[in-house]
This record gives sequence, C-alpha cells and structure tokens, in this order.
Amino acid sequence: MTVSEDGAVELAPSECRTLIAGGDFGRLAIRSSDGVDIFPVNFVMHDDALYFRSGPGSKMVDLTSDPRVAFEVDERSDTSAWSVVVHGHAMRLNSDADIEASTVLALRAWDPSDKFNYVRLEIDTITGRRVRLPERKVDRVS
Amino acid sequence: MTVSEDGAVELAPSECRTLIAGGDFGRLAIRSSDGVDIFPVNFVMHDDALYFRSGPGSKMVDLTSDPRVAFEVDERSDTSAWSVVVHGHAMRLNSDADIEASTVLALRAWDPSDKFNYVRLEIDTITGRRVRLPERKVDRVS
Repeated sequence: MTVSEDGAVELAPSECRTLIAGGDFGRLAIRSSDGVDIFPVNFVMHDDALYFRSGPGSKMVDLTSDPRVAFEVDERSDTSAWSVVVHGHAMRLNSDADIEASTVLALRAWDPSDKFNYVRLEIDTITGRRVRLPERKVDRVS
Repeated sequence: MTVSEDGAVELAPSECRTLIAGGDFGRLAIRSSDGVDIFPVNFVMHDDALYFRSGPGSKMVDLTSDPRVAFEVDERSDTSAWSVVVHGHAMRLNSDADIEASTVLALRAWDPSDKFNYVRLEIDTITGRRVRLPERKVDRVS
C-alpha cells in the first residue's frame, strides 16, 4: 500500500515505547565499512532496552567499530500505519547473567549464522508517527 | 510474529527484483552526521532503479554528503516471510524530464515536509531471503 502524508501524527515517546514493546520484528541499520547496512531482526524489549541475536558475523564487527545504530519497527492495518524509529547504541552481551536476564534467549534469529551473539540496544531517542492510509492499490504487482 | 531460522532460503537477484518491484513501502538507511538513520518511505521501481520522494530536509543533506544507502523491503504472510535488501547510491533528480520519466510523481511521501525532492536509488547489489514462519506467538509482550 502507499502511505499518504495526510493526517500524519507525531507520537509521544511513551506511545512509541508501547508500540515497539508490542512488536517483535524490526530493521537494524548500522554503519558498515563500505557505507551503511540494514538487517531484518527479531527482537524483544526488556527494561527499556531492545535485545536481539546478531545475524552475520560482519554485523558484529561493524557494531564493534561503531556502535551507533538506528532501528525501525512499523505496522500497517487497512486504515492506518505507524513507524517508530529508535536511535541508540548497541553493545554485545558478554555475561551469561545479562543474557538470561534480558529474555533474549527466547528469540530465534532471522539468520542462522552467528546465533550465539546477543546484543543490547540502549535507547537514546525514540520517535514515531502514525498516518492514515489511502485506499489500497488494486493493481500492485505480486 | 517471530521469524524462525529454519528453512531460510537465499533468493536469486532476479527473484529479489520481482519481489521489490511488487512493493511500494520500504526503509531507507543512510549515514547521518551523528551515526546512521533510517526512514520509512514509499517507493516505485522503474527501469531497475528505485525512486522515492524525500522526507525531512536533513535526509537530503546527508545523502549529498554520502550517497551510499541501504534499502529494505519485506513482507510476511501467516506461513512465510521475505526480506530484500538493496545496497546502492542515491542521487537527487534535478531534471523535470527525469522526474516525469521515473513515474515517482504518482507517489505520496510518508513525511509531508520537503516533498518536492525526488531521489533515484541506483542498485549496486540486491540480496534477499525467504523464511518459513513458526506458529504465531500467543504470549507476546504488549
């Protein structure tokens, strides 16, 4: 569907947190050695931080050299859509106690490789918007 | 829903192009002055390039200083999900002829500001995966 600019509403940080806490799938954007990269990831929110299992090995290397990340979650119904974007810092969890406390162990990784790396994303800022949707396109390619 | 690592399939570039050509909403990741940023955007695919109307003014500034971007589109059904990631270079369209030929004028921007900037993303690489989905979680955090 195409998202209209009509009726866009900025969401309060508290509402953004509620929305993202109800999600479990988002897109992680990081600086990479040759520009920028983006990965689909499953996640959990716990104690106001986001947790995920890392994907390809290169992702962990890039996070170590530059931990600044952006993370996006969105959801669409027939009549509206919202998108929440988190800016924050990612760090690898090295302690078994931290990993267990995060509840991240219940997650399955999108990517099967490198599945024993667990990452915490600490939220610096969280913003979001909700938009009304126009009529669904009927001529889309599928 | 949580995406399982079981049954993940790498998609051929031709299939990735077909999938992304059928989409109209994705997430654009760019290097920003203070790290990385990610934006939800509507897009069209035309002549093997992606076109979108730019959002906030800061996005255009960042694209001018570093045109390397990543762009992700995904879709989920009850039983499977796919995600396609494009790495490429973004450039502003300055010619009315280029803008009209791109078909981007039919798009509405996610963000109402700065709506007269049109951007072409030329594809350097395109990758994607399809995964089978496990049963939907019933105990999701909300």
